[in-house]
Amino acid sequence: MASDPVLDSLLADLVKANRVLAREGVVDDFGHVAVRDPHDPTRFWLSRSRSPEVVERDDLIRFDLDANPENAGHRRPYLESVLHARILAARPDVMCTVHHHARPVLPYTVTSRKLRPIFHMGSVMGAEVPLWDSQDEFGDTNMLIDTIPKADSLARALGAHTCALLRRHGAVCVGASIPEAVFVAIYMTENAALQYAAEATGLPVDYLRPREIEQTGAMLRTERPLRRAWEYRCARAGFAGL
Amino acid sequence: MASDPVLDSLLADLVKANRVLAREGVVDDFGHVAVRDPHDPTRFWLSRSRSPEVVERDDLIRFDLDANPENAGHRRPYLESVLHARILAARPDVMCTVHHHARPVLPYTVTSRKLRPIFHMGSVMGAEVPLWDSQDEFGDTNMLIDTIPKADSLARALGAHTCALLRRHGAVCVGASIPEAVFVAIYMTENAALQYAAEATGLPVDYLRPREIEQTGAMLRTERPLRRAWEYRCARAGFAGL
Amino acid sequence: MASDPVLDSLLADLVKANRVLAREGVVDDFGHVAVRDPHDPTRFWLSRSRSPEVVERDDLIRFDLDANPENAGHRRPYLESVLHARILAARPDVMCTVHHHARPVLPYTVTSRKLRPIFHMGSVMGAEVPLWDSQDEFGDTNMLIDTIPKADSLARALGAHTCALLRRHGAVCVGASIPEAVFVAIYMTENAALQYAAEATGLPVDYLRPREIEQTGAMLRTERPLRRAWEYRCARAGFAGL
Amino acid sequence: MASDPVLDSLLADLVKANRVLAREGVVDDFGHVAVRDPHDPTRFWLSRSRSPEVVERDDLIRFDLDANPENAGHRRPYLESVLHARILAARPDVMCTVHHHARPVLPYTVTSRKLRPIFHMGSVMGAEVPLWDSQDEFGDTNMLIDTIPKADSLARALGAHTCALLRRHGAVCVGASIPEAVFVAIYMTENAALQYAAEATGLPVDYLRPREIEQTGAMLRTERPLRRAWEYRCARAGFAGL
Repeated sequence: MASDPVLDSLLADLVKANRVLAREGVVDDFGHVAVRDPHDPTRFWLSRSRSPEVVERDDLIRFDLDANPENAGHRRPYLESVLHARILAARPDVMCTVHHHARPVLPYTVTSRKLRPIFHMGSVMGAEVPLWDSQDEFGDTNMLIDTIPKADSLARALGAHTCALLRRHGAVCVGASIPEAVFVAIYMTENAALQYAAEATGLPVDYLRPREIEQTGAMLRTERPLRRAWEYRCARAGFAGL
Repeated sequence: MASDPVLDSLLADLVKANRVLAREGVVDDFGHVAVRDPHDPTRFWLSRSRSPEVVERDDLIRFDLDANPENAGHRRPYLESVLHARILAARPDVMCTVHHHARPVLPYTVTSRKLRPIFHMGSVMGAEVPLWDSQDEFGDTNMLIDTIPKADSLARALGAHTCALLRRHGAVCVGASIPEAVFVAIYMTENAALQYAAEATGLPVDYLRPREIEQTGAMLRTERPLRRAWEYRCARAGFAGL
Repeated sequence: MASDPVLDSLLADLVKANRVLAREGVVDDFGHVAVRDPHDPTRFWLSRSRSPEVVERDDLIRFDLDANPENAGHRRPYLESVLHARILAARPDVMCTVHHHARPVLPYTVTSRKLRPIFHMGSVMGAEVPLWDSQDEFGDTNMLIDTIPKADSLARALGAHTCALLRRHGAVCVGASIPEAVFVAIYMTENAALQYAAEATGLPVDYLRPREIEQTGAMLRTERPLRRAWEYRCARAGFAGL
Repeated sequence: MASDPVLDSLLADLVKANRVLAREGVVDDFGHVAVRDPHDPTRFWLSRSRSPEVVERDDLIRFDLDANPENAGHRRPYLESVLHARILAARPDVMCTVHHHARPVLPYTVTSRKLRPIFHMGSVMGAEVPLWDSQDEFGDTNMLIDTIPKADSLARALGAHTCALLRRHGAVCVGASIPEAVFVAIYMTENAALQYAAEATGLPVDYLRPREIEQTGAMLRTERPLRRAWEYRCARAGFAGL
C-alpha cells in the first residue's frame, strides 16, 4: 500500500477519539465514533465491534454509505454501523459522527424534559436538541439502529443539528472534524449533568439566550478553543502532545 | 494434578470476574462471585474469605451444593458461601452467581420503588426484579445469608429471574456464563443509578416496554455484545487481551 | 532506641490508616487519625500537621492525654490534637480515633436529619449518632476543637458511641483497633451517602431494626470481616499484603 | 538572562497551581490561573492558550495590566487574559487570580440561590459571594471576558471579596498568594457541592454565623493550614515534597 500521510493522520486521530470518549465516560463498553474518508466522501472509517477504550488502528474498517464494509476479513462490524453511514450520507458537512449512551443525557430521553444550553460551553449543542423515538415508526424492536430505514429515520430527526437524543437509548453527535464532534459529545454530556442539577433545585433557571447560543457556539467551534480542548482530552487519554 | 485446560481457563476467568466487579464498583470489601465446576455440576468454585479486588487463583475453593468446602485447608470460606450453593442447586441453567451491595441498587431495597429497565442496556434484568426480605421468614438476624434455609428462601425468591434484591442488604445476579452474570451485575447497577436520576425529576418516565425488554435482553445476551463488554471490562481491570 | 516490634507494627498500621482514609475520600487536606500507645495507655500517637495522604513514619509524634507532645522537635502538631487526647482519656476501651470532614456526612450536621443505619454495613455506627454543636457551650469560635474544654465537651457528647457528628464541621469515629475505627469511618460515610439517596426519593424508608443493628454490628466487628476489609483498603491504598 | 530564584520559584508554583486545579476538577480544558510579578506589581504571568493540565514553564507569558503580552512570540494568549489583568489592576492586595467553570458552582450562576459558607472550610469565601452578569452592561455576547470594559465591570463586582460568580459561565477567585487563591477555588467548589446537597433535603439549613465565618476564614488563611493544604494538593497532582 502506498504511503498516505493524510489518511494515516486522520485514522490516528480516530483511534485517539475512541480513547478520549472512553476516558471522559461518554462511551463505555458500547458507543462508537466514525470519520469520513479524507479522499472519498462516499466512504467512512469505523472500528470493528470493539469497545472504544481498546480500539487500535488495525480495528478500523472502511465502509460505504450503505454500511457495506470493505476488506473487513474476519473482523465483524458493529451492529449499528449503518447509523454512521446514513448520517454521513445525509450530511455532507459532517466529517465525524459519535454514538453514545452517556448517562447524564439519558434522563432527557425518558422524560419530557428538554435538553438545552445552560452554560456557555453547552452552546455547541445549539438551541434545540431533537429527540428520536424508535417506537414512532418501528414499534417494538431490539432498540438497535441496525437497518437503513431506522438509520435514515434518525438522520431525518437529526436534520441540521449538531446532536440528537434517542429515546431510552442515548444520543448521536456530529462535527466538521473529529475534535469538533468529540467536543460536542463531551459538552452535551456536561451540559446535561449541569442542567439536571440546576433544574433539581426547583427554582427558575436562567438558560442561555438565543443570541448567546449562536455567538458562543460559533466562537467555541473556532480553531483556538477546539485545539486547546483536543490537546487536553488527548493528554488525559494518555496521548502526549498533539 | 493432571492438566485441565478447561478448568484452568474458567478459574482464570473467575479471578478476572472478581477484579472486574471490584474495578466497576459493584463489589468492594464485601461481595463475591462463584462459578459452577465445568466437569461436575454438583460442585462450584468460590474464593476464600477475601475481597474480590485481591482474589487470586490460589484463593479459589471447590464446594458442594450444601456449601461444604473441599480441601479448603487453612483457608476460611465466606460466611455466605451457602448463598451461591443453593442458587446453583435450584438453577441448573445458571453457571455463575454474583452477590453484591452496589450502592445504586440499595435505595430499591429500602423503599417501595421498583427497579425496572429504563434504558436498553437495563433489559438484561428482565421486566421484574424480585425483592427478598430476611425479616419475612427469619425475623431479626445478623443479616447474612449464612444458612441453608435462608439461602433456599432467597433462591425461591429469585425463581427464574436474572437478578433479585435483598432488603437493606444488596442483590444477587446470575448468568449462563461468567461474562453474562458480570454483565447483568454491572447493568443492574447502571440501570438503578439512571432510573434513580430520571425518577428524581418527578416527571412521568417512559420505561422500556415488555416486548422491547424481551427482544433487547435476548440480543444483549448473544455472543457479540457479551464478548465486547467482557473484553472492555477485563481491559479496565488490567487484563490485556481476552 | 531498643527494638520494639509491637510499637513498630502499630505505627506502620497508623501510617496505613492515614493513607487508607485519604484513598477512600474520608479525609482530604484535613482530618487525622490517632492510636493509643501499646505499652502506655496514657500516651497516644498522631502525625505532625500534615495531610493524611502524605503522612510517613517520621511524622508521628507521641502525646500525653492533655495533648502535650513528646520530642516533637521542629515538628508542629495539628491544632486539634487535643480532640484525640480527650476522647482517649474518656474512653479506655478505645484504641484508635479518627476525625474527618467526609462530605456525605456533612448534611447531617447542618439539618435536623438524623443519621442512622440504612443497610447492614451501617450497623457499625450503632442505632443513634450524637451531634455536637460548638455553639452550645462556646458560641462563635474559629470552629476548631483546639482546647481541652472543647475536646472534653465533645468527648461527653460522644459518650459510649462509635461515632459522633460535629455541627457544620465533620465527625469523629472510634474503635477498639485501627482497622475497626477505619471501618466505622468508611461505613459511616457510605451509610450517609446511601441514606441521603434513599431519603431523597421522598418515600418511607425501611431502616434497620434495633436488634438487626445490634447483631449485625457485633458480627461486623469480629475478626473475619474486619480483616477482610482492612486487607482490601490497604491494597487500594497501595500497600500489598497485610 | 540573569538568574532570578524568586521569580523561578514563583513560576514553578504557578505551573503547580495549573496542575493542582486540573487534578481537583476545578478547571478542565478551560479555566486559568495568573500570578503577579514578584518584582514589578504592574506585570503578571499567565500561560499561553493551553489547558491547565498540560501547562509548562515555557508556556508562561508576562503581561501588563491592560493584558498586553511581552515577548509572547508565536505563543497565543488566552482570549480572556484581560480578566486577570483588570482584577490585578483593581486589587493591589491580590497576588493570584483563578478563573474556572467548576461544575458545582454553576447552579448558583443560573438560579436565585445564594452561595454561602455551610461548613467551616467554606468560610474562606466570605459571608457573601457577588454574582456578575454580562447581560447587565453588555447584552448578548459570546460570553467571554475579552475586553477591558467587561473585565473592569467584573472587577467592580468582585470588589473586596475573595470570589465572585459569573452568570451562566463560572467564577473568579483571588488570594494573597498562589496557595491561598487555589485554596479559595477548591473550597468554593466543595462548599457549593455540599450546600447543594444540604439544601436539596428541603430542610432548614444551619449555615455558618457571621462571626464564625470571620474567625474561621482568618484562621484558615494562616500559614499552617495553607501550607498543609498546598503540600497535599501538590502531592495529589504528582509533585513530591514542597
